[in-house]
Amino acid sequence: MRTDLERFFSPKSIAVIGASRDLPTISGQPLSHLVNHGYAGKLYPVNPRYPDILGHKCYASVAEVPETPDLALILINASRVADMLEQCGQKGVPYVIIFSSGFSEMGGEGVALQKRLVAIAEKYNIGVIGPNCQGLMNVADKAWAGFGSVFFAKDYPAGRVSMVSQSGGFGFSVLSLCSEGGLAFRQMVTTGNEIGVSSLEFIDYFVRDPHTDVIVCYLEGARDVARITEIGLKAMTAGKPILMWKVGNTDEGQKAAASHTANLGGAMALYKAAFKQTGIIQVEDIQDVVDYGRMFRCGKLPNGNRIAMITVSGGAGILMTDECVSRGMQLAKLAPETVAKLKEFVPSFGSLGNPVDVTAAIFNDLALINRTLQAIVDDPGVDCIALINASLQGEIATKIAHEIVAIAKTTDKPIAAAWSARDVMAKDAYALLDDARIPHYKSPVRCGRAFAALSGYAEAKRRIEAQRNEQPLVLKKHESKQILKSRIVDVAEYAAKKVLAEYGIAVTLEELATTREQGLAIAKKIGYPVAIKVQSPDISHKTEAKAVKLGLASDAELSAAYDEVLANAKAYNVNAQIEGVLVQEMLRGGTEAILGITNDPLFGPAVMFGLGGIFAEIMKDVSFRLAPVTPAMAREMIEEIKGYPLLTGARGRVHADVEALADAIVKLSALAVDLKDHVAELDINPLFVMEKGKGVKAADALIRPKVKG
Amino acid sequence: MRTDLERFFSPKSIAVIGASRDLPTISGQPLSHLVNHGYAGKLYPVNPRYPDILGHKCYASVAEVPETPDLALILINASRVADMLEQCGQKGVPYVIIFSSGFSEMGGEGVALQKRLVAIAEKYNIGVIGPNCQGLMNVADKAWAGFGSVFFAKDYPAGRVSMVSQSGGFGFSVLSLCSEGGLAFRQMVTTGNEIGVSSLEFIDYFVRDPHTDVIVCYLEGARDVARITEIGLKAMTAGKPILMWKVGNTDEGQKAAASHTANLGGAMALYKAAFKQTGIIQVEDIQDVVDYGRMFRCGKLPNGNRIAMITVSGGAGILMTDECVSRGMQLAKLAPETVAKLKEFVPSFGSLGNPVDVTAAIFNDLALINRTLQAIVDDPGVDCIALINASLQGEIATKIAHEIVAIAKTTDKPIAAAWSARDVMAKDAYALLDDARIPHYKSPVRCGRAFAALSGYAEAKRRIEAQRNEQPLVLKKHESKQILKSRIVDVAEYAAKKVLAEYGIAVTLEELATTREQGLAIAKKIGYPVAIKVQSPDISHKTEAKAVKLGLASDAELSAAYDEVLANAKAYNVNAQIEGVLVQEMLRGGTEAILGITNDPLFGPAVMFGLGGIFAEIMKDVSFRLAPVTPAMAREMIEEIKGYPLLTGARGRVHADVEALADAIVKLSALAVDLKDHVAELDINPLFVMEKGKGVKAADALIRPKVKG
Repeated sequence: MRTDLERFFSPKSIAVIGASRDLPTISGQPLSHLVNHGYAGKLYPVNPRYPDILGHKCYASVAEVPETPDLALILINASRVADMLEQCGQKGVPYVIIFSSGFSEMGGEGVALQKRLVAIAEKYNIGVIGPNCQGLMNVADKAWAGFGSVFFAKDYPAGRVSMVSQSGGFGFSVLSLCSEGGLAFRQMVTTGNEIGVSSLEFIDYFVRDPHTDVIVCYLEGARDVARITEIGLKAMTAGKPILMWKVGNTDEGQKAAASHTANLGGAMALYKAAFKQTGIIQVEDIQDVVDYGRMFRCGKLPNGNRIAMITVSGGAGILMTDECVSRGMQLAKLAPETVAKLKEFVPSFGSLGNPVDVTAAIFNDLALINRTLQAIVDDPGVDCIALINASLQGEIATKIAHEIVAIAKTTDKPIAAAWSARDVMAKDAYALLDDARIPHYKSPVRCGRAFAALSGYAEAKRRIEAQRNEQPLVLKKHESKQILKSRIVDVAEYAAKKVLAEYGIAVTLEELATTREQGLAIAKKIGYPVAIKVQSPDISHKTEAKAVKLGLASDAELSAAYDEVLANAKAYNVNAQIEGVLVQEMLRGGTEAILGITNDPLFGPAVMFGLGGIFAEIMKDVSFRLAPVTPAMAREMIEEIKGYPLLTGARGRVHADVEALADAIVKLSALAVDLKDHVAELDINPLFVMEKGKGVKAADALIRPKVKG
Repeated sequence: MRTDLERFFSPKSIAVIGASRDLPTISGQPLSHLVNHGYAGKLYPVNPRYPDILGHKCYASVAEVPETPDLALILINASRVADMLEQCGQKGVPYVIIFSSGFSEMGGEGVALQKRLVAIAEKYNIGVIGPNCQGLMNVADKAWAGFGSVFFAKDYPAGRVSMVSQSGGFGFSVLSLCSEGGLAFRQMVTTGNEIGVSSLEFIDYFVRDPHTDVIVCYLEGARDVARITEIGLKAMTAGKPILMWKVGNTDEGQKAAASHTANLGGAMALYKAAFKQTGIIQVEDIQDVVDYGRMFRCGKLPNGNRIAMITVSGGAGILMTDECVSRGMQLAKLAPETVAKLKEFVPSFGSLGNPVDVTAAIFNDLALINRTLQAIVDDPGVDCIALINASLQGEIATKIAHEIVAIAKTTDKPIAAAWSARDVMAKDAYALLDDARIPHYKSPVRCGRAFAALSGYAEAKRRIEAQRNEQPLVLKKHESKQILKSRIVDVAEYAAKKVLAEYGIAVTLEELATTREQGLAIAKKIGYPVAIKVQSPDISHKTEAKAVKLGLASDAELSAAYDEVLANAKAYNVNAQIEGVLVQEMLRGGTEAILGITNDPLFGPAVMFGLGGIFAEIMKDVSFRLAPVTPAMAREMIEEIKGYPLLTGARGRVHADVEALADAIVKLSALAVDLKDHVAELDINPLFVMEKGKGVKAADALIRPKVKG
């Protein structure tokens, strides 16, 4: 696989295969855009129908091009693309963008055609973008190798944001609208069906690109998504935030699964887990990209999540407060010294709290903002500062901007402004802020949202750095692998818990009986009351089959129940293979939780935690992480569910053994990694979390083995 | 109270009290804005310091003004406002705007000053706006009676949107930015501390104003919020959507309350209930107002929530789908005939599903969009249609816009476009759409959000119209009033359930015993097992006091327990007044729910429903409605909680008696209305919802009486 992706964006020479003289059409556009926007390298149109296009000599075939171009653009009908790719391979062309549609996106025949392309690309080691894409645009170096409305514009300003998009039309509209909104792009690439270089590989490249500061991605899906945490953490280390659209969120395409974990762990749940683990920032709309991108370009990160606001409009302050607090920030509590300072000049009908409301009195006394800002910057309890200037405009606005710029230079705390004046009314003020890279937003809500993104990113960075010293637990258990190897039916409770126990997860005291007498003997050993459960790989839902009896208190009760559950199991599934009847201790007290593994075909193994039964299934109050999970991550998983207070004494409950629970999650994660070739799904349901200091115990479990396709 | 609010916006003459020649200051601005923007009425500056200002003769006092002005603006220091208001009263001025700050917003002395203003306004029956506001702007009639940066602009285009805002700075920035975004305002008023005319009264006025189509409101709080449903429903009847910011959402200012209902029913929960009941649309940011306002100005409402999309960019289609579906819309399922028609011209690599992806092939065949749009419009299963045109621009864009306008004229179905081309690149196309009132949005997400607002409004309208025939249940129970009248301590279970029973809500079989022997006799009558509970107005949390015993199965158990609970109660609170011990049937089966009333000092009585215990308290999975609640509303309350599946057979449960539950909610609502002067809070917790057909039963209840302050 070629990784030198710089040559896509800055090729020394480009062959345009299928170039047309009909310039507005898809096959006409790329050459004309390259020419019009001043591409500096060599251009070789390839089309037997023309002697030349736009003054460039046209070649009848790739073979005739006088050198081996760095990059070829293929703009011909789908049916002929494979032949042309073959010719590129023979010529030794290292990089190709296939624009043509008519492949896997149309199904049927297209899928076969696409497979041929993959084979040819592999044969010649060609780095391919597409097919079914709109190419790329290197704004900084004027290589506009693509088509679409956005290419007809004048040059865009060059910046330090790079984006990869699986959608051509939407991707380029992001570039265009962000440029208009004041966030300039360095390069944009659209990847379409991604038979070659993937979105994640481009992100990986942008992390290495010294001229990119902020990375944007529009993602529908990724066949190499298993790399997302690795690449996300690389970007975090490099200090480059990733702003990502993950779309297709309302898809209901979840397959029927045996376990609750797999049912709850659709792709979106796993993406969200990956985002949490890496600090990738989800965006919803183009405005978010502009707003967050501008905030990140300020080059400062807050040390905590405490924001202070200075406002000339009380209302705008309330709006920003709502937005920041609902997104996890805190209103800074100003130090008494700060309040005392403010009292000297803020009008009595203003507010000395946070937000500090200097009111419309600013019209009568301009120095108010400057003095207030300095006082707030000096307060050690403040991590970042928002100025809310309503619609201040004209000369006053320019003066205020000067003051903000001067003070911002003296501090490491991020400062941004919510400033609603129309562009024409505060042109100079905005230009001053832009030059000093002080972000400003037309609405307090947008400003608050951008601060929350910055603050959330900084928090993720601190968390990830703190966790970097934690080594994930690694366990290797040969015996469990043997049990699961070549298994094709579900592993019932008894055997599943043997596997759990091997990885150090405590399970209920229990033994398997194959006769009633044996059952009575086991019960005697364990002590009454006991539970009994029929064990069969063909009965995953034992309760539904009435193959379970709880709280049996005596030999007599056990004897009667033993026969009954076996009869019920047979009635439920006459062909069920019965392994025996599990005789098990009854647990008392404790809180029921659920732990599980879903081993996603693309993501790999992920671990789930939730509270038992209804909370997980109906309320969907669960948390996921991609394995491996460290102890700190396990604690995060526990704390982030809504029902967490139930584990810490809410409603008169005892405080549960959260440490033992976190430990069980870590061990389950080690199991998930060790058995990733053998376990498709796993549920521990319920896991009893006992009183603090008394541990956890798996009371039931189910493993669905991974069956080799 | 004056209700002829038109004179605020279109006064024939205005006195400007405290007008200054220093024009940029707060007291200088209003007169200069009125003059500069061509106010057509008479202007009377009042200030003893000047002979004239801006060519208008200046008067030393209000008394000297040669006529009684329709409106006076007061721009002087807070300490002198009361005297000036008094003078206005003596002069007979009907309407006054008080701009000055320094009243209740600064606390202490300011509160007293404000009370004086209220008294004077009442004495003279003056309609007052303010104090602490920035005035108003009648864009249509050029009466710019206010101050702030936004007033320095050139004229804004006049439209049919009217707004009231409690925040001056933020409110006017909304007007300015909306105008820039293509949504023109008719009038804007900022109300500040609202000692006189309230925000809701202005909304009520806008509903009556024949020149207003869309109403916008920024609201921090409202002392007359009890009128919100009445006014909201009036607006709905008039077909005027209300777009509302309700801010201060993250306030934690919830007082400690005895009942769960009151604890969960903070102001925001009640506002949200009111919004649901009236179809008021909550907005988060200024962009929402522009986007929703433009959508509503199209003048069409969809008949259902099924949207179809036609896109040239698959990615943008996915984004809009996510947005619409997550906000309650459905993707229309296209009829087979429609799909057959589309197949004739949509490229094979496009998509015939919904979204219909005509792909970038549009560059080569323009007629594609036109034919596709017609086919979709003709499909009876489609309620509204989005065109997603990515960045199409120039001549192609203009041609497409022509087609859209032509087809939109022939259908009642709302049509809007997500169109990302920059304004300069698709100027003609956008102008064509604007003229035809076809909304267009720069991003598919914004377009989807606006469609969801329109669709949600239309759905609320259908629901409200359907419910209009339902009369709320009215019950009048003299005896209950007698029980609660002049009560100051909490009403314990036994007495509280007598009240419930009077309103037809079934309660457990039970009697109060004052001796052990009496208890045994009652148990015999009811039949074992029974529960016993100490009754005391001083012990609201009986379980916490260990004053409850459940599942007593025999005389012996009851006897022992009887003494124990009394001893426990005394140990818990030695001074508790003990009314007796309640002996009660034990309920079997059923789902535990909670019903309650919170009688908010401002909103009045509201009814809550949730599932029992943890679901309500920890998961906060509850629904509220302001009383009265009709049967249809009660069913909505039940269906909207997340745990609803637990009542309809999820996880192998029996189907609960949802009809009886709805009936109990309706009766509780009737109780809430009948006893609104006597009940502050009420919890039925738990209410057992039995199997379908078997009704509900209140197992415990608590009433906190309303104590006259």
